[in-house]
Amino acid sequence: MFQEAEADPQLSQDQFKKIEQHLRIQLVNEQYRHIALQDRALLILVAGIDGAGKGETINLLNEWMDPRHIHTIAFAEASREDRAYPDARRFWMKLPAKGEIGIVFGSRYTALFEEASRKHQNLEHLEQEIRFVKRFESTLAANGVQILKLWFHLSKEAQQARINDLLANPSTAWQVDKLDIRVHKKFTSIRRASQLILDSTDAPHAPWVVIPSADPKLRMVRTAQAVLASLKVGAIKVPVFHEPDSVPISPSKVNLLERLDESAKLSKADYETQILQLQNRLAQLVRDKSFKKRALALVFEGADAAGKGGAIRRVTRAIDARQFDVMAVSAPTPPEMSRPYLWRFWRNVPRRGRIAIFDRSWYGRVLVERVEKLITRASWRRAYDEINDFEQQMVEKGTIVLKFWLAVSPDEQLKRFKERTHSPFKQFKITEDDWRNRRKAKAYSVAANEMFVHTNSAAAPWHILPANDKHYARVVVLKAIVKALEDAER
Amino acid sequence: MFQEAEADPQLSQDQFKKIEQHLRIQLVNEQYRHIALQDRALLILVAGIDGAGKGETINLLNEWMDPRHIHTIAFAEASREDRAYPDARRFWMKLPAKGEIGIVFGSRYTALFEEASRKHQNLEHLEQEIRFVKRFESTLAANGVQILKLWFHLSKEAQQARINDLLANPSTAWQVDKLDIRVHKKFTSIRRASQLILDSTDAPHAPWVVIPSADPKLRMVRTAQAVLASLKVGAIKVPVFHEPDSVPISPSKVNLLERLDESAKLSKADYETQILQLQNRLAQLVRDKSFKKRALALVFEGADAAGKGGAIRRVTRAIDARQFDVMAVSAPTPPEMSRPYLWRFWRNVPRRGRIAIFDRSWYGRVLVERVEKLITRASWRRAYDEINDFEQQMVEKGTIVLKFWLAVSPDEQLKRFKERTHSPFKQFKITEDDWRNRRKAKAYSVAANEMFVHTNSAAAPWHILPANDKHYARVVVLKAIVKALEDAER
Repeated sequence: MFQEAEADPQLSQDQFKKIEQHLRIQLVNEQYRHIALQDRALLILVAGIDGAGKGETINLLNEWMDPRHIHTIAFAEASREDRAYPDARRFWMKLPAKGEIGIVFGSRYTALFEEASRKHQNLEHLEQEIRFVKRFESTLAANGVQILKLWFHLSKEAQQARINDLLANPSTAWQVDKLDIRVHKKFTSIRRASQLILDSTDAPHAPWVVIPSADPKLRMVRTAQAVLASLKVGAIKVPVFHEPDSVPISPSKVNLLERLDESAKLSKADYETQILQLQNRLAQLVRDKSFKKRALALVFEGADAAGKGGAIRRVTRAIDARQFDVMAVSAPTPPEMSRPYLWRFWRNVPRRGRIAIFDRSWYGRVLVERVEKLITRASWRRAYDEINDFEQQMVEKGTIVLKFWLAVSPDEQLKRFKERTHSPFKQFKITEDDWRNRRKAKAYSVAANEMFVHTNSAAAPWHILPANDKHYARVVVLKAIVKALEDAER
Repeated sequence: MFQEAEADPQLSQDQFKKIEQHLRIQLVNEQYRHIALQDRALLILVAGIDGAGKGETINLLNEWMDPRHIHTIAFAEASREDRAYPDARRFWMKLPAKGEIGIVFGSRYTALFEEASRKHQNLEHLEQEIRFVKRFESTLAANGVQILKLWFHLSKEAQQARINDLLANPSTAWQVDKLDIRVHKKFTSIRRASQLILDSTDAPHAPWVVIPSADPKLRMVRTAQAVLASLKVGAIKVPVFHEPDSVPISPSKVNLLERLDESAKLSKADYETQILQLQNRLAQLVRDKSFKKRALALVFEGADAAGKGGAIRRVTRAIDARQFDVMAVSAPTPPEMSRPYLWRFWRNVPRRGRIAIFDRSWYGRVLVERVEKLITRASWRRAYDEINDFEQQMVEKGTIVLKFWLAVSPDEQLKRFKERTHSPFKQFKITEDDWRNRRKAKAYSVAANEMFVHTNSAAAPWHILPANDKHYARVVVLKAIVKALEDAER
């Protein structure tokens, strides 16, 4: 893998001149085609032996191409604010839009290489980190973000020579810091570590390309060629990333929605006593000191007029408005369309001590987007895994994730639609779309059942509840939230 | 102003019931009209005597209306990250979109009330803060954000009674903290301070409404009525906020562009020597330790093909890609359209130690938006003040703001257009729009001249330079940047 690079190949000035002009024209033309097409974003990850000239090369790339559509993203250590959210959020937030190029320095790989180059590695942690980047890359690649990873490499001798050269020239000496000199001593262990990481994270949809870096001319040519190839080849089909223990995707045999007791109800008197008690309890729980280390994500799904809004209001009533956010999910805006579908939900993930309520959610991917055929079959099938992974990351940060499906029968729904048309409170709540969706009830029910099978887990469970009686539904929702918070306190 | 509120008026349960139903229907209907119209955002600022029940009332407001379109925004103290930017940025970033409602706790007013209620006030600082909020509010109000400010008030005796009540009930005792009790002792000085602040920041476009708060029923009714009135009345015409020393707006008599020496040029040899020297110097300056406390904002304006992109690349070449961002400004996206025009530039303001380069900028407001008649005459005339204020805020944070106008003659522009059509590097750079804009050269020149007059200042100067010779223009740009950085170092 590193053989060619460690031979420190060179390019003569003549050879370089011959290649340069043609390469630059191709590169800038492909970039403009990429901008015009807007079919994907290109993420270029930059890593390699220190002192190999990564920064220099990227600066030159900015010069060869149109820098207005290239965004350099340098990740330092996570800030205090970053650490209040699941780890991956800061990476998600920086994703370039389709048509743009992002060049990433110091990604999650930094920690990986560090761990791998230790004398005594924590193998379990290493494997975990590798799994993390693989999952992340496959989710991005499958959702419109193309990935190219560059490893800048050279021989130990060439590294020493380069450091000497840089130090000799006052205008370049800044590029060498003490770290580089120390790193030189560790050449062998870093070489071994990078071999391991590159091997285990190389994938057709996120390939590593080794750039021989001893000679700046060849280094630039090879980098430009790698970027050019990426721009030309376009997006690559991504296989679903399966965890060994993930559930095989097969149509559900049980119809969970049919099993519900549609007649479940609660008298007004019982409702009023219970709901008040539950709200008081909820109020205590989210104000408790222990909640400062946790967060709560509540997902409400169900047909139109199932009573999601009403249930949400019974929850928010107990909570100070400064502690929660409600995200009403509707069709994505252009900046959202231009990034993986999970992006806008990552933006709204709750930070520590806070409550995020989703009125419809990322499950739109496997509900409306599936039923309305807005995406391919492969996309929504893959989404189960991606969603589980997303929720898992919240859970790992201490977030309690609860998902509610409010099931309303067709008759009850029709009754509510008619009420809405006449109620002065609710006439704005009903649109043509609602009537249209109603006609697709069967397809939605199939999609929902399959969704339950694939995304139900102990860590982020589904609560499927009969909602023909609003009182009953609201009490069940509040009970589940209170119970989850109490369980977490223990 | 506080007389009525300090009489602690009450509403009987019967009276309340009679009003409530009708009020809620009106409120929710007006909210949906507001959502459907999307002509403005509504920002409700919440302040008042502690323990008056602000939080409670806002929670109830969330219940009476559709909480999915209400966003509660609580500002705590500025974080480390916030402090790396001009102060106002964090307020700008939280602005709700048109059709939405934002409820703000703890805004810039917090500091104001604190200062005003001190025994020995720093009057200069107080005046400065008052000027700041007035300016901010008038800019927002003039750009599609409606403002309503609520002051929750009650008598000293009622405050004490309320605190006692809250403490007596375990489910509400959390609302009282030690601060409230201490604050009670300072009732008189707080009363005096709020009188002063409310008087000096009350404006037709951002009115204060005092809410009598001793009785929760009346408090809620009055709050709902105030919000309802705001929703009904819609946006109010905002007078331009004039600083005493601001330049009167009058058409420019001097045509600065005609005074330029169009024939200014530089030989290739001179160019190559000078540009390298300047780039080296620039490289040192932005890597210098002293720059960590500063920031650099570079604005490039000028006709199509004036050489903005080329000049920008000569600047970026000297800088590490990790230290700068280039914002290529084109037509705003829907989320940007839905907020004041300065919002998207506030998002890209450079943080401490960084360089933000704008390829076209906020000056589009007084150039393309004026010439193409996309906004009213009042809007672009007002924009001069708003832009000066925006830049002033960057400067106050230590940011060096430099603005470049690259002036190209019609003949040279035509020559470049033709070249672009044939160059393999540049054929993507020319569009139908470019030819169309060219025909409006006269109108752009008038707008540019007027812009120079009104937005040139010592703190954020315009550099208007002949750009028929690219070499000459690039050297002038780099010289100006280097000089500004050197001056700042002293």
